[in-house]
Amino acid sequence: MNKYRILRSIGKIVLTEVLLMIPALIVSFLYGDGDHIYFLATMIPAAVIGFTLSHVKVVEKRMGSRDAYYIVALTWIVISVIGAFPLYFSGCFRSYWGALFEMVSGITTTGASVLAKPELLPHGVLFWRSFSHWIGGMGVLVFVLMIMPMENENSMHLLRAEVPGPTASKLVPRMKTSSMILYGIYGVMTLVLIVLLLLGKMPLFDALCVAFGTAGTGGFSTSSAGIAGYGSTYLEIVIGIFMMLFGINFNVYFLLLLGKVKEAFRTEEVNWYLGIIAFSTIAITCNTFSGIKNLGGAAKDAFFQVSSIITTTGFATVDYNLWPEFSKHLLVLLMIIGACSGSTGGGLKVSRMIILTKSFLTEIRHITNPRVVSVVRLNGKGVDKETLIGTRIYMAAYFIIICLITLIVSVDGFDLSTNLTAVLSCFNNIGPGLNGVGPMENFGGYSDWAQVLLSFVMLTGRLEIFPMFILLSKSSHHRIGKRGF
Amino acid sequence: MNKYRILRSIGKIVLTEVLLMIPALIVSFLYGDGDHIYFLATMIPAAVIGFTLSHVKVVEKRMGSRDAYYIVALTWIVISVIGAFPLYFSGCFRSYWGALFEMVSGITTTGASVLAKPELLPHGVLFWRSFSHWIGGMGVLVFVLMIMPMENENSMHLLRAEVPGPTASKLVPRMKTSSMILYGIYGVMTLVLIVLLLLGKMPLFDALCVAFGTAGTGGFSTSSAGIAGYGSTYLEIVIGIFMMLFGINFNVYFLLLLGKVKEAFRTEEVNWYLGIIAFSTIAITCNTFSGIKNLGGAAKDAFFQVSSIITTTGFATVDYNLWPEFSKHLLVLLMIIGACSGSTGGGLKVSRMIILTKSFLTEIRHITNPRVVSVVRLNGKGVDKETLIGTRIYMAAYFIIICLITLIVSVDGFDLSTNLTAVLSCFNNIGPGLNGVGPMENFGGYSDWAQVLLSFVMLTGRLEIFPMFILLSKSSHHRIGKRGF
Repeated sequence: MNKYRILRSIGKIVLTEVLLMIPALIVSFLYGDGDHIYFLATMIPAAVIGFTLSHVKVVEKRMGSRDAYYIVALTWIVISVIGAFPLYFSGCFRSYWGALFEMVSGITTTGASVLAKPELLPHGVLFWRSFSHWIGGMGVLVFVLMIMPMENENSMHLLRAEVPGPTASKLVPRMKTSSMILYGIYGVMTLVLIVLLLLGKMPLFDALCVAFGTAGTGGFSTSSAGIAGYGSTYLEIVIGIFMMLFGINFNVYFLLLLGKVKEAFRTEEVNWYLGIIAFSTIAITCNTFSGIKNLGGAAKDAFFQVSSIITTTGFATVDYNLWPEFSKHLLVLLMIIGACSGSTGGGLKVSRMIILTKSFLTEIRHITNPRVVSVVRLNGKGVDKETLIGTRIYMAAYFIIICLITLIVSVDGFDLSTNLTAVLSCFNNIGPGLNGVGPMENFGGYSDWAQVLLSFVMLTGRLEIFPMFILLSKSSHHRIGKRGF
Repeated sequence: MNKYRILRSIGKIVLTEVLLMIPALIVSFLYGDGDHIYFLATMIPAAVIGFTLSHVKVVEKRMGSRDAYYIVALTWIVISVIGAFPLYFSGCFRSYWGALFEMVSGITTTGASVLAKPELLPHGVLFWRSFSHWIGGMGVLVFVLMIMPMENENSMHLLRAEVPGPTASKLVPRMKTSSMILYGIYGVMTLVLIVLLLLGKMPLFDALCVAFGTAGTGGFSTSSAGIAGYGSTYLEIVIGIFMMLFGINFNVYFLLLLGKVKEAFRTEEVNWYLGIIAFSTIAITCNTFSGIKNLGGAAKDAFFQVSSIITTTGFATVDYNLWPEFSKHLLVLLMIIGACSGSTGGGLKVSRMIILTKSFLTEIRHITNPRVVSVVRLNGKGVDKETLIGTRIYMAAYFIIICLITLIVSVDGFDLSTNLTAVLSCFNNIGPGLNGVGPMENFGGYSDWAQVLLSFVMLTGRLEIFPMFILLSKSSHHRIGKRGF
């Protein structure tokens, strides 16, 4: 364990967060709600701590893979813990834990809220809350990579620890270049969205916040009315389409940039993803429309909701809790599936579902024909053994964690549908669930300890389980005692 | 594919079922409810068909593993389809499909019923319904082995296709002997239970039916009042203990018979199983008792219900649907875990849960220390790779099937808790679920097609997924076309 290296990295992260708070500080000065104090009271001590930590002397430069996992897990925790203070200072939360839940929800791009009326927050804080989606969206990966110059081997460790999805995509051999390109795509797409929202006559402040929520597949909105509050079909369609676009594997955009159009359109995961969206939209439209006149509206609502849930954004234009059971069940299934790997979305990821389904079919073939060696293929290439094993273990861990956390939060007395969808929603970084945590409800009903537990669940889901558990695991702590000290 | 060999085996199965109906026929004569006609109208045509099929000429003696899976899957289907006729003839079912659901539920030892008042059935039919639990309990494995003399290799194929749990236990090298011993243990334990029930002043007819339901971990009772109807704490405790005993891996009893007491008590799966029962009983008692006076009663109810659910029996002495949410959530978790492998119970099986949890922990160790080769151990021995892969794929298939079937049955309009627990209950062969399929409700609310689908789910769960899917799989059918004909 390279303790000093980790501390130094955390110091740089803290300093970066202070810089990231500057836009929110500016907004608070512009609106004059008085919340600039909350930011300054957070930023000044944070800057001191960050400066001190980032000057820790590093004796040993090398990093092991465990160190990389530690840095990733701690980065997300530290950013959440510090970022929650402006929210807490606003006085709109029952306790610091509620503010922490909100910040974790922001940075993990979950979008679950404990607030019934977010519009009561001062503008600077509201901006910071939405901006956290945008920061979290592409993963801290990118800025971790940018602020920490290190050898390629170490970067690969971090990439494995953080990049969403079963395979760490190797876009270009040089990590830093590729992360810059991804960040560029992300930025340009966000800008285009902001322009389109402004063209739909959305106020600038709202357009920025909604664009952050869409790009990060987060889902915080600026008022309790949500996207429905704008009453504009144009805006709903634009947001619906952009949610879908941000849920696509960014490799595809990269391939398009390189002019490899054919290859881009042959990506199996994306084809499945678009197919699932099309199927679900049609199925829900058929299930919910009540007459030929209403068909267009039903189709629009169905598409928006499907796009919002499968990308784990969580915006809502209708109270889908009132939809027929089949539509609600389908949404829960979409919650589990999630978006593409290598996108800003969460969930199990479409590629994992493909691999798991193919594993099962391959096993059936293997049983009936033991002599034939069957290979699971993705995009025409055989999936390597490590990825296969990893995917299956991930699935098992996913299943066990969902079951256990659902059991624990049931102590608060909500029904099974509420608890199960709350945990699925947090783990898959969606936002709303069904019943007590439906799109028109919030997570404020859960007690403080349940909110802290669900914050942990959001982080575990966003970091794809392993980093958080490695941070907690006994064997790692044991090794600190043995080697580190 | 050895088509003639399969037909011949099915013929023998049909003849065996005709023999197994004789006790029910005798009961119907004794009570004189007039239901002997229903049995004769089933048994005579069945005997003719069975006799004809069992005289099919077999040219090629050898069997492949696909053939074995076919035989297992078809055995359970054929027994259910024929066994449903006496139930259907009784006129108590909405359609043949309801009767089929009931029979599949019996033979798979699920115990889910579409009947609000089973006491309306004539005695012979009621006996047949419960007796099917006992037949199903030990798996058709045993009698398949007894009526089909074949080489050891073939038996191993069948064993893999049918023995519940991740590892086909090799008790003694000679299959037939070992199956006879298991059957012996099963029979003796059932007899002891019948005697104890009679000592508790349960009527003989009820004692037989309840003993069949307990031994097979099925859960059909003879009246809508269920076990609570006897109003006897003694009976509830006896049944509670015996459910638990029938959920233990039968290898343990075998080891005890051989005098290997130490080894028997060191079986990791059984220790976990008993630990889970103890923990759950204490937790539910704490959650449900309302005063020190009521402590004993609460503990008894908690133990009975935990034992009933984890062993996938499904008897109920209280309406646990009215319990606090935490207790209900815990029961749902027990539904998923299930009993020990190599027992008459269903579910994922405790050993699978152990292997999956250990896989996850091993993966964490492997990530933080890539050079260390980690081994998953069970009972102190390393679990072989085939079993590990199989278990993880099983888990994935389990997850996918539960999700998809829950979505499909949601068309009938029940809520998520009802549909999810109905599917879990059927797949894990339990019986009751929550809400609309709670312990005081029944599956009669589902439409015909949903009942047929849930029948398929019960069979899939009982046969641990693969045999049913191999029967359906395209590649097998394809191969028939290529080689068989």
